[in-house]
Amino acid sequence: MSEDQKIGTYPFVVEPFCSDFRGRLSMGVLGNLLLNVANFHASDRGFGITTLNEGHYTWVLSRLVLEFVEDAPRQTEKFSIQTWVESVYRLFTDRNFAVFDSEGNPLGYARSVWAMIDVDTRKPVDLLSINDGAITRYVCDNPCPIERAGKVKAVASEPVYERVIRYSDIDINGHVNSIKYIDHILDIFPLDLYKTRRVKRFEIAYVNESRYGDTLQFYCQDMGRGEYHIEVKKIDGEVICRSKVIFI
Amino acid sequence: MSEDQKIGTYPFVVEPFCSDFRGRLSMGVLGNLLLNVANFHASDRGFGITTLNEGHYTWVLSRLVLEFVEDAPRQTEKFSIQTWVESVYRLFTDRNFAVFDSEGNPLGYARSVWAMIDVDTRKPVDLLSINDGAITRYVCDNPCPIERAGKVKAVASEPVYERVIRYSDIDINGHVNSIKYIDHILDIFPLDLYKTRRVKRFEIAYVNESRYGDTLQFYCQDMGRGEYHIEVKKIDGEVICRSKVIFI
Repeated sequence: MSEDQKIGTYPFVVEPFCSDFRGRLSMGVLGNLLLNVANFHASDRGFGITTLNEGHYTWVLSRLVLEFVEDAPRQTEKFSIQTWVESVYRLFTDRNFAVFDSEGNPLGYARSVWAMIDVDTRKPVDLLSINDGAITRYVCDNPCPIERAGKVKAVASEPVYERVIRYSDIDINGHVNSIKYIDHILDIFPLDLYKTRRVKRFEIAYVNESRYGDTLQFYCQDMGRGEYHIEVKKIDGEVICRSKVIFI
Repeated sequence: MSEDQKIGTYPFVVEPFCSDFRGRLSMGVLGNLLLNVANFHASDRGFGITTLNEGHYTWVLSRLVLEFVEDAPRQTEKFSIQTWVESVYRLFTDRNFAVFDSEGNPLGYARSVWAMIDVDTRKPVDLLSINDGAITRYVCDNPCPIERAGKVKAVASEPVYERVIRYSDIDINGHVNSIKYIDHILDIFPLDLYKTRRVKRFEIAYVNESRYGDTLQFYCQDMGRGEYHIEVKKIDGEVICRSKVIFI
């Protein structure tokens, strides 16, 4: 199989109601599109959510990193997303993304790490045992020139934000939608910060699932030079996710 | 112009991350799609946001009613949205929508009322004066078999929910995105209600704009038989929007 056949390319337009207050594609919407193209790409190759659900398996997003080379595309602008599988291990697979403007210039990149779980037992599945490891045929060495996720050192002692999980946060698995955390985390920063700076890099590592009615507390440590480390915990202290946001 | 040319039809799929916990297209996502197809339809006919913004005008959504004949489409299912202009007055235009499943059966309908404003003065513009009233050429009498929005009688004395407006709520106009109110209003109801009943009809009338930092208080009156009237107010009592939600 040629490298080109391993890469999926998907065209989009920034819809008028999918931009932030600056008129730029919002990161939550971009995050959703990344998950959607991941699913299109996997489905076309026999590893999509629908196929897997019939086999009682589903993909779970473990980590996501987005880094912008340029600012996000503007309202009504065309852009495209490419995605490919970088590597496959027994319990995890690395899937990368590149975002291009309408002229093919890179706007940014993303890295994601996924596990597959059994929907009944919620236990991880050996990726190399599915269809005799067929997924490894799609591994592709397309470049993704951004660093992998780093360590988050959240040491803040008081939460800066608190949020009770409601109906609109919950997805079909009964847990908070992975992308909703992105919106919630970006919501801890004041609007004035977004007026003078923009998010250069966003990392999130999912640790535990949260459910309807949970109160999430957001701890944020200012690391200096625009870098913030965030830990999202339940009231009982259980860590739900960790995140790093870098503004420039 | 034939009636068919006046109606725009747009195909969609329920993306995996755009459904609620039941695996059905979420109402917030559907609301966004309605606004998007309204913009596609208007743009194709010279009345889209981009064209208007160059002329310093923009569309403002005044009212929206959604009513489901059948339940919303399921994750991965195909569906389509039709939209057309029902009527044009000096200050308002009525735009309707129909949602169909992949076999062309109606799943639901929506009615919307829009005004056009000058982005500098924020004052309404005479629709009949734009391009010599060219918009009236697109008026179409396609049936929309749901009632217009009714009166909302919110008389609750205590708010059931409170929410501070954050970064992710704000759109390019600096106000809360019209569709975010739908999510926020649906979030006042307990998950258990959504487990046993579904929203049959949702109405919203936008009264005033709210901005970053505003605290919105949600007052909800149970009118019996699954009908709820909601008033969203700022702390100072200013009404932001009124809504009616009917569960069956």
